[in-house]
Amino acid sequence: MIIALQRQLPKLINFRHFSYVNKNNKYFIQTIRPFSIMSSQKDHKLCMIPGPVEFHEDVLTSMSTLATSHVSPAFIPVFGESIQLLRKVFLTEKGQPFVVSGSGTLGWDMVSSNLVEPGEDALVLNTGYFGDSFSECLKVYGAKVTQVKSEIGERTTIQEVSDAISDKSYKIITITHVDTSTGVLADVKGISEVVKKQSPNTLIIVDGVCSVGCEELRFDEWGIDVVLTASQKALGVPPGLSILVASERAIEVFKNRKTPIPSYYASWAHWLPIMNAYESRKGMYFATPPVQLIYALNTSLKQITSIPLETRFEQHKKASNRIKDALDSLGLNFLPKNREAAANGMTAIYYPEGIQPADLLQKVASHNVVIAGGLHRAIATKYFRVGHMGISATEPERKHLDTVISALTDSLKELGYSGK
Amino acid sequence: MIIALQRQLPKLINFRHFSYVNKNNKYFIQTIRPFSIMSSQKDHKLCMIPGPVEFHEDVLTSMSTLATSHVSPAFIPVFGESIQLLRKVFLTEKGQPFVVSGSGTLGWDMVSSNLVEPGEDALVLNTGYFGDSFSECLKVYGAKVTQVKSEIGERTTIQEVSDAISDKSYKIITITHVDTSTGVLADVKGISEVVKKQSPNTLIIVDGVCSVGCEELRFDEWGIDVVLTASQKALGVPPGLSILVASERAIEVFKNRKTPIPSYYASWAHWLPIMNAYESRKGMYFATPPVQLIYALNTSLKQITSIPLETRFEQHKKASNRIKDALDSLGLNFLPKNREAAANGMTAIYYPEGIQPADLLQKVASHNVVIAGGLHRAIATKYFRVGHMGISATEPERKHLDTVISALTDSLKELGYSGK
Repeated sequence: MIIALQRQLPKLINFRHFSYVNKNNKYFIQTIRPFSIMSSQKDHKLCMIPGPVEFHEDVLTSMSTLATSHVSPAFIPVFGESIQLLRKVFLTEKGQPFVVSGSGTLGWDMVSSNLVEPGEDALVLNTGYFGDSFSECLKVYGAKVTQVKSEIGERTTIQEVSDAISDKSYKIITITHVDTSTGVLADVKGISEVVKKQSPNTLIIVDGVCSVGCEELRFDEWGIDVVLTASQKALGVPPGLSILVASERAIEVFKNRKTPIPSYYASWAHWLPIMNAYESRKGMYFATPPVQLIYALNTSLKQITSIPLETRFEQHKKASNRIKDALDSLGLNFLPKNREAAANGMTAIYYPEGIQPADLLQKVASHNVVIAGGLHRAIATKYFRVGHMGISATEPERKHLDTVISALTDSLKELGYSGK
Repeated sequence: MIIALQRQLPKLINFRHFSYVNKNNKYFIQTIRPFSIMSSQKDHKLCMIPGPVEFHEDVLTSMSTLATSHVSPAFIPVFGESIQLLRKVFLTEKGQPFVVSGSGTLGWDMVSSNLVEPGEDALVLNTGYFGDSFSECLKVYGAKVTQVKSEIGERTTIQEVSDAISDKSYKIITITHVDTSTGVLADVKGISEVVKKQSPNTLIIVDGVCSVGCEELRFDEWGIDVVLTASQKALGVPPGLSILVASERAIEVFKNRKTPIPSYYASWAHWLPIMNAYESRKGMYFATPPVQLIYALNTSLKQITSIPLETRFEQHKKASNRIKDALDSLGLNFLPKNREAAANGMTAIYYPEGIQPADLLQKVASHNVVIAGGLHRAIATKYFRVGHMGISATEPERKHLDTVISALTDSLKELGYSGK
């Protein structure tokens, strides 16, 4: 079942039904998927939550890459190339990517421990659960945190930011691009503009866990200093990678700290030489990198960068509108106050009156689709969430959107909801 | 190629050539491996380094588990059961396991930030690179570190420990069970005894990254307070999991801290409720767990606990003696001064005179086997390392030991080494 082919041949083949792996500089085409993963993808419950998302077959195949040394000539270029491909996805020329074994949460520790010194001021724009948590993390490392807290479903206004930064000189400002707990989309571009104008020394930090790979985000053009994200959302890779890009300015700030870095594992002093080494195709050791996850990341980044990012942003907007229009026509209400303030990779929806949370999630699951409950502490039992990132948005032939819309429509009907 | 079977049937089947996955309460037997992973395992270079180790086919299959929600009824019992199985591997009744997305290194942060308060004394028994690094980590979190540093290749003596702890009252003592940089095996049992006798309040911390699953280690019987490890060594799972077990006493010490925990991501205050929730079969969120790695962990832990741990320890001793006897008969010298002080899951060997480091590693690689270079800073270019953990030791029918011995013997011959 394995056919060795010449190096140039794989390009000619429709990879949807094949995986390829590079072994000893020969490509092997494996026809395993049509019989295994592809068919079993049909059987499993479709995972339409705001991360982990559904994974491409080739990404899953990479996850079971055979044992490979983390400093071997086989792995080094895979890691090195992944670091370079991340720049393309983040739209940056000189930003410094970090790929670290950990969950997205670890990105907060990296920001808080490398860029803020004890007693320095941080401004957190809070549009949900993740703003609360980022604040808590910053405080652990000694930051003095001020929050601009929006009502549930509202985004921070430019005026609110302008007012806040005219009060005080902040070392950093943090923006949750999409708060996964509310589905609210921040105006990162507008906020960056006002910060650059009024407080040019403030580092602009974007929590892009639920935005990188699905929302328009222009690192260099918008002058962002850090974007942190995780593997399991729009980057389309199983969970386990904390991914972050830092601007040259942020790296300078880190290098010129006066106080010691108060973390060991999250310290860029350890990770920066590792990233530089692998990018220049040398192995180096601080902690064993998660080899299989990085193979999977490499596979996904190649897929993502094979078309213009603009197209990808559009695909996610289109998918989002499709879901939101369908739910709107059922008479459901969204957490975000308007479409402009709503994420394109996920949707947060209030349960209609009379529908019990557990009932709807279970009913939808009986239709072989998994959606998520609420997460925002204040209203956790009042709403649910649907994810539509990655291949669910970019490969309509998989019919993930149709499936989740049907499952939701049918489930609501079966529970006696008659619509508007 | 997929055959649905009754629940009880899989037990009857020889799983060496099949994988099984539970989907919608039906078992599916996939015959993909004989044609894909099994055959390609033959093609790839055998990874005989001291971690990552070679992985079992079923573990690799679990790595490509389809997208699954981290709070779904499918995943919760897998995580919960893994936590329980870890107790069996660590030989503890009531120890508290932690399974966190991260590399083994993160375990040092967990110990240093949860158990030691700023200004408290820590004693580090240093038998190589990893003692240096653990010390550095402890200092970052404010510990006052004293080291008992052994000569390269020597283990800490009980007398040295006894002398050290009679000087000062230490909050913790750390022991690197196997220092992967030197292959030195610590006498954890003997050290624990003397600490318990002379300084009963001192918490006993074991870095078991290169020992859990291959070296005799009795958590409860020896009265250990923390063992930390990683997934990619003798636990036989790809890298990306930081795994730690804490005693009830250690958890009490953590709960009674007077100062705040100086880490966010490594704080047990976040992870303890998560571990308790999953163990009692409830989903809960702090950070997205690495779902696929935990499926793989579950698969490997089931394999490990399917035979008595005593047998597993014996298998690793036997494999180790096999490798060491073969290299000994070639006239090579080991870093550890004697067999008693040498690890059973890996071997560290000096290059014979006239053999250049890069030459030997490359020559062995040309025989399709990957071994590791030196890591200890003082002598990095003077020695190499071979791993023999997990399936390489427990499944002799794979002939991994024969393969690495032949590759080394042939390579040395080809490089002109004539032996003793």
